[in-house]
Parts: sequence; structure tokens; C-alpha cells
Amino acid sequence: MDTVDKLSEYCKIHNYEVYIIGGPKTVDNDLNLTDHCPGFGSAAKYVATTISELERDINVYDIPAVTIVEIMGRNAGWLTAASALARVNGGAGPDLIYLCEKAFDYDKFIEDVKGKLKVKPGLIVAISEGIKDSTGAYVSDTMSSGAVDNFGHKYIAGSARALEQLVREKIGCKVRAVELNLMQRAAAHIASETDIVESVLLGLKAFECAVNCETGKMAAIKRLSDAPYRVEFTSVPVSEVANHEKIVPMDWITPEGNDVTEEMMAYLKPLIIGETNLKYENGIPKQYKLY
Amino acid sequence: MDTVDKLSEYCKIHNYEVYIIGGPKTVDNDLNLTDHCPGFGSAAKYVATTISELERDINVYDIPAVTIVEIMGRNAGWLTAASALARVNGGAGPDLIYLCEKAFDYDKFIEDVKGKLKVKPGLIVAISEGIKDSTGAYVSDTMSSGAVDNFGHKYIAGSARALEQLVREKIGCKVRAVELNLMQRAAAHIASETDIVESVLLGLKAFECAVNCETGKMAAIKRLSDAPYRVEFTSVPVSEVANHEKIVPMDWITPEGNDVTEEMMAYLKPLIIGETNLKYENGIPKQYKLY
Repeated sequence: MDTVDKLSEYCKIHNYEVYIIGGPKTVDNDLNLTDHCPGFGSAAKYVATTISELERDINVYDIPAVTIVEIMGRNAGWLTAASALARVNGGAGPDLIYLCEKAFDYDKFIEDVKGKLKVKPGLIVAISEGIKDSTGAYVSDTMSSGAVDNFGHKYIAGSARALEQLVREKIGCKVRAVELNLMQRAAAHIASETDIVESVLLGLKAFECAVNCETGKMAAIKRLSDAPYRVEFTSVPVSEVANHEKIVPMDWITPEGNDVTEEMMAYLKPLIIGETNLKYENGIPKQYKLY
Repeated sequence: MDTVDKLSEYCKIHNYEVYIIGGPKTVDNDLNLTDHCPGFGSAAKYVATTISELERDINVYDIPAVTIVEIMGRNAGWLTAASALARVNGGAGPDLIYLCEKAFDYDKFIEDVKGKLKVKPGLIVAISEGIKDSTGAYVSDTMSSGAVDNFGHKYIAGSARALEQLVREKIGCKVRAVELNLMQRAAAHIASETDIVESVLLGLKAFECAVNCETGKMAAIKRLSDAPYRVEFTSVPVSEVANHEKIVPMDWITPEGNDVTEEMMAYLKPLIIGETNLKYENGIPKQYKLY
């Protein structure tokens, strides 16, 4: 969006009749002035589905075990929050959720896990890859800073792996780190219909803006209501989007800092609704190339 | 199956009229005397789909990058071999595949990667979690043995993470480890219809055996032909299944040790065919509890 801003400014100054409009897309969902971003709903659907399937897998066993699921988001915890959507049909979903917006407290985390283990044996903990402590240091950096391999090279561990070590050490129970990694942004086989339809309409909106000689704008989604879910497509000044990150509001995180609120659930729920008409060929989803 | 064997022997010796039949199931697909195991086809479909989606994600970029995907299997590489099914519709699939059956050679691996990077920028390497070097030492153990964290605790890294370090050090390009982790055995939303139908019929076969007063058997699948795919359901002596692992035959791995053969493809292809009639509710797959 910064590029859109700069290019449109350049064209204006030089009187080029070129109209530049940004088309938003990011699974991080962190763009300013749009209710949400294309891509996010599908990634959220993948995360929610995966958490509900992991829950099924984990609840087979009755020995204490903690599964820490690391979800994309360095500065914005939207996709991690989407893990709570595993609860939409009555499932427990993650037992604890830590977003990167709130300072991560190691002691509180261990207390939280111990507390939950008293109630049930198999826990799922969802964390943002970018969780940081109160000094602003990434959990992944803090925990792995002393680790080197046989060749003296630094190990690059994720946040989940770092917390896996911590749980092993402080609690001593079975613990496993799971990274949703590239799958959460690539799993087109479980795309949200809402997301796909909106992506097309938003692209059309961007095209309409350019045809109408607007420039330096970003096509955006404005939400009118949660239930029934209604949106309209609009455009916003790209200069107010560029270089701003939209993070999760603090009051959408519970006061204890280990879950999300009903406001967050109401925001998220409509975005994963509907499935695409997926074609399979020889047992895997058919892919199309436009070039 | 060892338990089935022991229990049925015990009942025979004590003249109990209890008939014990094993119902096979494992995503590892490593049970003797059955063509394949329930669960494997669905896990294979997940692996193939995921590799094809990762391929799409990775090919967006044109800087050299290696994505190392770690797939379940300590001693049997069947599920790793299934990564090759990403090619069924003409996709490239993994550029290199290393199964745990063949001794892993670090130098040869680096040579292989360098060679492929000359041809294309974005590589996918599929490896079994249980790859071992020629001395039988796990790659994961060898590479991580010197790594400790700030507290002096040993890091437990997977094979992919270990090879990620090696590529970073020896080649220096962008590299990422991806573990399919619990998802590959839990992703019921992308189950294979062939697998699900066979699972039911195989359970029925086990029931039929018990009703007919057979004991100490395992229900098994016998393949009659690959294309058209035809199987029959049979039973085999469980004593010949217990404590044997069916590993990938060496001649289903290419001589260079970095891919699978056409025989393997012919074996795998039918197992992922067909999709289940999945019901979604509120955006995620509906789950059923039988209790």
C-alpha cells in the first residue's frame, strides 16, 4: 500500500493519466481502514478446522499433555484469535489463547497451564508467532538465544518450540509444538466462500475506482452488521493505510490475557461461512493456471 | 496386533469361547500381510494435497529457497512416498524425496539440493521424520546433539529442522522446515473415500471372522489389480503381523535414493481416490460423537 501511495503521488505530480488503486490481501488481516482483508477468512477457516481436528486427536489420550499451536502473526493476533472459532459447534477449542498484542508473562503462562491441567488432561494452547514479553523481546528470541548446534550455529526456534521447552522444564508433562506454518496461508482446499466472493467483489470495486479516475485509494470492506452479516465495498485514502498496522483491540482480549471476547467471536464468525465448489482430480484438488 | 495374538492364544489355552480378531489401522501403513492399512489413504491424500498447495505458494517467489517438509514415519516411509502424489495432475511435486528406509547421506543431500537449485529457484524436499545416516543414527539426533537452550536443556529438533540448519550453513540460501505434524493424521476434512469405504468393509470382515469362530486373525486387504483398482477382504494369521514392520521395498526407491519409482506411484494412486460427503456447520466440518 506504501507503493500504491508513492506511485499515485508520482503520477499526480507528473500529470500522468494513470490511476492507481490498492487491492488489499493478507492473511494477517492487519490493514487499516478495512473491516478485514481478503485471504483472512480462508486462513481463519483452516485454523478453526485444524484446531477442531487436533482437539479430536488429543482427546483420545488421558495422560496430561499440552499441544502448543503456533499461528502466523508477528504483530497482529487476528489469525491466532480465529483458533477460537473451533468452538462454533460446541467444541472446547483452544484451552488458552495468547495474542501478540498483549505482553506475554512466562510465569502466568505456566500458572494458566497448570490450572487447566487440573481440569482436563489434553490441552491445546494457541499462540501468535510474535508473542513478546513485557520488555518487547520476542519469546522465540529469548528462549533460543543460548542454543547452538554442533557447528556453533544458532538455532532458530519458533515461539511454540520455546514454550515447549519451558513446559517440559517447569511442568514436566508431555508437550508438543505444532506450527501451522505455510499451510495456513496455502490451504486453498478449505477456502471460505465468503472470503472468495468478497475478494472478487473487492477487486471489482478497485477496478471501478480506477475507471472513475480515482487514484491513491485502496478498495475496502465496510461492515454494516454482524448478524445478519452485511458489508459494503468502498474506497479509502491509501495514505492512511500505508505503514499502519491494525492490531487486535485490547478489549477484544479477555482481562486475564489468555482468551478472546464475545466481540471478537461476533467479528470472526461470518468470515468463515460457506465452502467453495472444489473440483478434485485423481484424488487431489484441481488447480488452475491463468497464464 | 501383538495384544490380539496374546489374547487369542490365552483364550484358546483356557478354552474361552472368545474370538479375537485384529482390525488394522495406521497412517504409517507398516502392517505386514495387508496391502495397506485403513487411515493411510486419507493421510496420503492430505500429504499430496498439502504438497501441491505448498508448491503453489513457493513458486510465487523467484529467489532460491528450499522448503523441507517432514512427514510421519520413524521406520516406514510410506507416507513420505505419498508426497509424490502431488504430481498426479501434472504438478512437479517434491523435487527430492528421502525415505527412512535408505541410509541418508548428508553430502549427497547437499549435492542434490545444489543440483536442483541450478534448474529452479523454489524447491520442496520431502523427508521421513525417521531418516538415519549409514551408522543408523537418526538425523534429528545427530544434528541437535550439541544444542542446548539458556537453561542448559537439550533442544529436541526434528529431522527437517536439522536439515534446515545444514542447508543454511552449506548453501546459505533461504530455507524453511515444515512439519506436517499431527495434522497429517487428524485432517478428517480431506479424507479419502476409498479409505473410508474400505475401513467400514474391513471392520465388517473382522466381525464376520469372529462370528465364524475364527480367532488370532487380522482382517486384511488383498489387492487384485492397480488399474482398475480391485481388492478383496481377507484374514491373515495375526502372529505373522505382530512385531513385524512392513517397510518400503528398496526397488520402489530410485537408485539415486531421492525419489520413488513408478511401481510406488501405481501402488499409491488408487488409495486417495474419492471424497467424503463432508457436512459443514457454521463454517467448520461438523463432527459426530458416538457416545
